[in-house]
Amino acid sequence: MSDTFAVIGGDAAGMSAASKAKRENPDHDVIVFEKGEWVSYAACGMPYYIKGEVDELDDLVAVTPEEFREKRDVDLRRDAEVVDIDRETQTVTVETNEETYEQPYDDLLVATGASAIEPPFDGLGLEGVFTIHDMDEADAIEDYVTEHDPGTAAIVGGGYVGIEMAEALSARGVDVHLYEMLPHVLQPFGEAVAEIVEDHLREQGVDLHLETAVSGFGGDKRIDGVELEDETVSADVAIVGVGVTPNADLAESAGIELGSTGAIATDEYGRTNDERIYAAGDCAEATNVVTGEPDHVPLALTANRAGRAIGQTVTGAPTATGGTAGTAIVKAFELGAARTGIVNEDQARQAGFDPVSITISASTRAHYYPDGAELTVTLMADHESGRLLGGTVVGREGAKRIDTVAMALTAGMTVTELQNADLAYAPPFSPVWDPILTAAKVLNGKLG
Amino acid sequence: MSDTFAVIGGDAAGMSAASKAKRENPDHDVIVFEKGEWVSYAACGMPYYIKGEVDELDDLVAVTPEEFREKRDVDLRRDAEVVDIDRETQTVTVETNEETYEQPYDDLLVATGASAIEPPFDGLGLEGVFTIHDMDEADAIEDYVTEHDPGTAAIVGGGYVGIEMAEALSARGVDVHLYEMLPHVLQPFGEAVAEIVEDHLREQGVDLHLETAVSGFGGDKRIDGVELEDETVSADVAIVGVGVTPNADLAESAGIELGSTGAIATDEYGRTNDERIYAAGDCAEATNVVTGEPDHVPLALTANRAGRAIGQTVTGAPTATGGTAGTAIVKAFELGAARTGIVNEDQARQAGFDPVSITISASTRAHYYPDGAELTVTLMADHESGRLLGGTVVGREGAKRIDTVAMALTAGMTVTELQNADLAYAPPFSPVWDPILTAAKVLNGKLG
Repeated sequence: MSDTFAVIGGDAAGMSAASKAKRENPDHDVIVFEKGEWVSYAACGMPYYIKGEVDELDDLVAVTPEEFREKRDVDLRRDAEVVDIDRETQTVTVETNEETYEQPYDDLLVATGASAIEPPFDGLGLEGVFTIHDMDEADAIEDYVTEHDPGTAAIVGGGYVGIEMAEALSARGVDVHLYEMLPHVLQPFGEAVAEIVEDHLREQGVDLHLETAVSGFGGDKRIDGVELEDETVSADVAIVGVGVTPNADLAESAGIELGSTGAIATDEYGRTNDERIYAAGDCAEATNVVTGEPDHVPLALTANRAGRAIGQTVTGAPTATGGTAGTAIVKAFELGAARTGIVNEDQARQAGFDPVSITISASTRAHYYPDGAELTVTLMADHESGRLLGGTVVGREGAKRIDTVAMALTAGMTVTELQNADLAYAPPFSPVWDPILTAAKVLNGKLG
Repeated sequence: MSDTFAVIGGDAAGMSAASKAKRENPDHDVIVFEKGEWVSYAACGMPYYIKGEVDELDDLVAVTPEEFREKRDVDLRRDAEVVDIDRETQTVTVETNEETYEQPYDDLLVATGASAIEPPFDGLGLEGVFTIHDMDEADAIEDYVTEHDPGTAAIVGGGYVGIEMAEALSARGVDVHLYEMLPHVLQPFGEAVAEIVEDHLREQGVDLHLETAVSGFGGDKRIDGVELEDETVSADVAIVGVGVTPNADLAESAGIELGSTGAIATDEYGRTNDERIYAAGDCAEATNVVTGEPDHVPLALTANRAGRAIGQTVTGAPTATGGTAGTAIVKAFELGAARTGIVNEDQARQAGFDPVSITISASTRAHYYPDGAELTVTLMADHESGRLLGGTVVGREGAKRIDTVAMALTAGMTVTELQNADLAYAPPFSPVWDPILTAAKVLNGKLG
């Protein structure tokens, strides 16, 4: 009899694992349980659907259920929720609309994802108040905007989702108010990026309310306002994007250990404390390549890569899931902003480093070549060792240059090693010293 | 008495060294001898001046002679040619229009650059036949095109210069014929890139003559044709860009050792076999980070970096010049093409590797996001060790992603390590798996 690999969750990590396992060993039985309808979809694309740049929600689906079943021979079961894991008998309990049944497994992957945090706001249930945690919600927002043509939107939270939705709703002709409790948007990107993004958001007509706590929403059946400490501001639609929390309850109930981040703890192969049970994606921890410590970075590449590695491991070729540098990039209207590693001094100190950082601005092209843009680069390093800890970039072009910094972190490079990297130069593409190299030079000067 | 640092050559390496030395130690006497008029200019920008995208030749000057003298306190002497180096007495002989004199030095930098190769062609002296080796020549080409409004251009050589000049002259309304002796243009970029660039050049109206040797130019006083083996093709202007050769004669006459590449041999600090004499830039070798062997890669960043390091070294802080990965990027009309490391199987074998390579094409953005372009990526690795050896990319956007590969080479990474790098993803900037990562996955599959 062939082995059974059961997967809980049909998005990035789960489907990557299932596809890879089946490809590596077609005799392996691979079953995926997905509690909803949608599988293998690009959640990151949802704001662009609402914005109107992506025609159909279906366009965000990377691989259709039919392809998984027919071409990849994966036993995909939708509307099938795993409600219990019995580690003793190696069995999961599955609930569908029609029945409840038990499914034995040899290896199990928990890829249950994360959920949008729902803060304790009044009026969260009003019509026109949305989180944007899945495809059905994206569909509902699009429908609502089309149907009600809202004049004013309240976006709560200045993270990726908030900023992408500000762009999307502005493009739909909605007046956007963005509320952020902290002094700056994009907290994980640091002040240098935040201040540039904030200026740009204002230029683009976004009404930015920093250090402003929202307590809830007003309205009868449908939202008509957002409640602040001292006032109520009118709003015809609201998007709450204040972060996500790992869906770890199912695993925890089965005695699978969580890490200090609240996500499922794993080893370098994505294995939990039960050697037959793996976890990957937004519900799981990954190792931070800078600190060497477990981290929770719920992003798509980490999920896909870990899933794929686990698909290889369960079919006989143990493959490390790879670490995370916390690399992220976001489009804010005309700007690109990106980060990697540690860029916060307190975090650096907590991780045992003595942080030194600099911020520079430089052109993305030769000074005389047309249409260059200013790229602002921040780099942080450890004083004593000179080791690079992290960086950010922001500008109208060139934000993907963060990858150069991410590569330096992956390799554990010092600032001098980064400064000596042989990057590509020609006038249409870069100054002789790429802005990242210029930043490394300046940081090296400060390190002494 | 303060030390004297003499520099021969006032472009990238020389001026970087002079500026850095003076900044590190203002008491140091720093003298630069430049045999021409132009200093610190961006030779790489010349095609864009001829194209008409850069208004003034002066715009290509990064730092003016006045700034060097007044702000940076460098004793810059133009029209001053060093004709002899006496290592015994640590003196150079300088010729100007008015006089010949001797200048003692404590440390000397040879930064004499490279010259355009002049093949043994008939008619090389005809009016309208140009190499493009310096600013005066760029000026002459611009004047000639403006004055004579040539109908047809013959460009000899399908390297950077040839391709950039094809774009520049096409933009000026000239019918361009490009002649390349080898089966492909951009030889150092490999076939995968060359074929895409060749198709694009043809689409853009360039008449491409591959495997076609030019023997000379015909015409009376002014060029009227280009001579091939069997025929003469009409041409009103010709640009010869068949490579450069290091200007190493002065150094060689003084007993300074050249390497096997014909450029001046140096150690990791840019020092020659004479410990008081350094060499940097297009006249000098640099260490290839992949092979660990001396290489001659006459490119701007290598020159600037080595010059700067030598400026630090001579003022008391020994600083390695850094290696070269041979990273290069070129714009060919709407395409960007880039390379780094070893991408040629024969070269890989000669360096002791067992090369395995793959080529993939992938979108630069999420599949559903507007305006993505196809990026074609080639990666080469050593079979046994899995170590990455080099790569190329070509496409309408994203060519700077070569830097990710260059970073992997600098760090000596394996393909698996590259595949596990945490690069930035958001739909407007990349697919979840950046094309570089997809290429690494596919190459890893082939490595087994």
